[in-house]
Amino acid sequence: MTSLAPDALGPTVTIGEILVEIVATSEGEGFREPLNLIGPFPSGAPAIFIDQCARIGGSAGIVGAVGDDDFGKVNIDRLQRDGVDVSAVAVSTDHPTGSAFVRYRPDGSRDFVFNIAKSAAALIEWTPQVARLVNRAGHLHIMGTVFAMPSAWEITRRAADIIKARGGSLSLDPNLRKELIGHGQTRERLEQLMAMSDLILPSGPELALATGIADERAAVQSLLERGVGEIVVKRGDAGSTYYGRHGVRIDCAAFLVDELDPTGAGDCFGGAYVGCRRLGLEPAEALTYANAAGARNVTVRGPMEGAATRAELDDFMARTERARP
Amino acid sequence: MTSLAPDALGPTVTIGEILVEIVATSEGEGFREPLNLIGPFPSGAPAIFIDQCARIGGSAGIVGAVGDDDFGKVNIDRLQRDGVDVSAVAVSTDHPTGSAFVRYRPDGSRDFVFNIAKSAAALIEWTPQVARLVNRAGHLHIMGTVFAMPSAWEITRRAADIIKARGGSLSLDPNLRKELIGHGQTRERLEQLMAMSDLILPSGPELALATGIADERAAVQSLLERGVGEIVVKRGDAGSTYYGRHGVRIDCAAFLVDELDPTGAGDCFGGAYVGCRRLGLEPAEALTYANAAGARNVTVRGPMEGAATRAELDDFMARTERARP
Repeated sequence: MTSLAPDALGPTVTIGEILVEIVATSEGEGFREPLNLIGPFPSGAPAIFIDQCARIGGSAGIVGAVGDDDFGKVNIDRLQRDGVDVSAVAVSTDHPTGSAFVRYRPDGSRDFVFNIAKSAAALIEWTPQVARLVNRAGHLHIMGTVFAMPSAWEITRRAADIIKARGGSLSLDPNLRKELIGHGQTRERLEQLMAMSDLILPSGPELALATGIADERAAVQSLLERGVGEIVVKRGDAGSTYYGRHGVRIDCAAFLVDELDPTGAGDCFGGAYVGCRRLGLEPAEALTYANAAGARNVTVRGPMEGAATRAELDDFMARTERARP
Repeated sequence: MTSLAPDALGPTVTIGEILVEIVATSEGEGFREPLNLIGPFPSGAPAIFIDQCARIGGSAGIVGAVGDDDFGKVNIDRLQRDGVDVSAVAVSTDHPTGSAFVRYRPDGSRDFVFNIAKSAAALIEWTPQVARLVNRAGHLHIMGTVFAMPSAWEITRRAADIIKARGGSLSLDPNLRKELIGHGQTRERLEQLMAMSDLILPSGPELALATGIADERAAVQSLLERGVGEIVVKRGDAGSTYYGRHGVRIDCAAFLVDELDPTGAGDCFGGAYVGCRRLGLEPAEALTYANAAGARNVTVRGPMEGAATRAELDDFMARTERARP
């Protein structure tokens, strides 16, 4: 039994920022001198999620906006090639495609230069194309980044109601940061979405932040009591845990890989998990594919470059050692 | 005798876009796949001009805006280090620093991805800091890029009147493209500025575009008759020509260099010429420094990286062969 609507009901849809990412090839602090860089890589958390969801075999579509430039084309080309419905991606004639420059510090933390809020990425509107995609969607995946984007938030709220009304399901990747939770209407919006969610995929301290409960088990219990069908806790290189109804808990050991570029791992994890569950896989199997998708993605430079088909993940799993549970 | 106000009257001021430039290290078409890049380089035609003007020893200031990010800092740091007054550079808290991605094609033409019109670069306002700089300026250098920037145009018009009224002078680098001249008020604005200019520095087909006269000598004559004191025609690797009153013509042979990155050459030429003339150098000498500044800049990757001091240009001239006149 799955708490998510089957793939046959219609595509998994996500809404939000489509970006290019430019990565510094050397570690260090910031971008205050000319550096060697690589890019543009297609990026944006919702875009990475939906690309992985499509690559693993799920039907998938995205609502977003890019500029009328090569950075927009690099995203649309990639998503389309990987099977994502891009009919609801608007092309702005006057705003550029959003971008993120990323540089890793030696301690693993990152410096960014963003152009998102004033780029095409933030100009999401309810168009006839969006209505058409949403009206035939079977599932909505919500990235917490919409909390900070007023235009995306309105579309998300509207899409959630339509998709739930037609028997679809809803998943939420909170993507919360401490600084954000007290900001504006974030808390209120998060509560609204959690109450509607069939699946929540928190990572790091997000579960405690979202529920206000420090203990993982108690936090999970409070979500299950609110009607959330399954909670999957992402722990990066420490694996992941599924919590379902009736006290079901499944732990999944991590795949042991050399990390080259961690960006996008959580989004690939989510895309693989939602895709597999909607295709009818049991939680344990979906969880294993999700772990493999996240692990494989960090071995490739570029946030979306490691998104993999099911066959590629089978191959990856066959040749990759796992941590002891 | 020079037709430009002496340096002692106050700094040369320019107004316009401050950008970072990111350069692809391989030739080819566009940015539709991940490429090796180098950047951020400080850039923007007015910024390159004023940096070279300051480096050659002229007093100099710029009116512009950057974002509150590393790309803004890389520009402010460089300009400040090179002696440019940056007190009138605003820092936007919500718009990113403007950017230009550049890739050369094998035939020497270029592909761009711009973020200028919706970036901080386009948000130039008349602030108390701008007023203070303009009120003590001795010369205004106008880049034709302001024709396409409504905010910069208003400030430029106002600054031109103030600086001329206090005995200052005005130079114009038309930076015209065919597609632009018929656009909106460009023709009318160009006429206004040409009538006020003491020096015009056209390149390529700009002289014919600006005057509507195909023959160079006749076009120059029409400008001299309108009161322009000197016209300097930039011809890239074919050198340059000075035209002054009373039929004076000075041809300057090009320096022979291996071109690595042509971006910024014309702006460095202008900055060196205006700087030298305002410091009291005769046309022939200023023209030679200007040619050297443009030539030296194309031997260095990055639009502003080759901007040179007078000593560096003396050294460059001593060791660089010149084309036959």
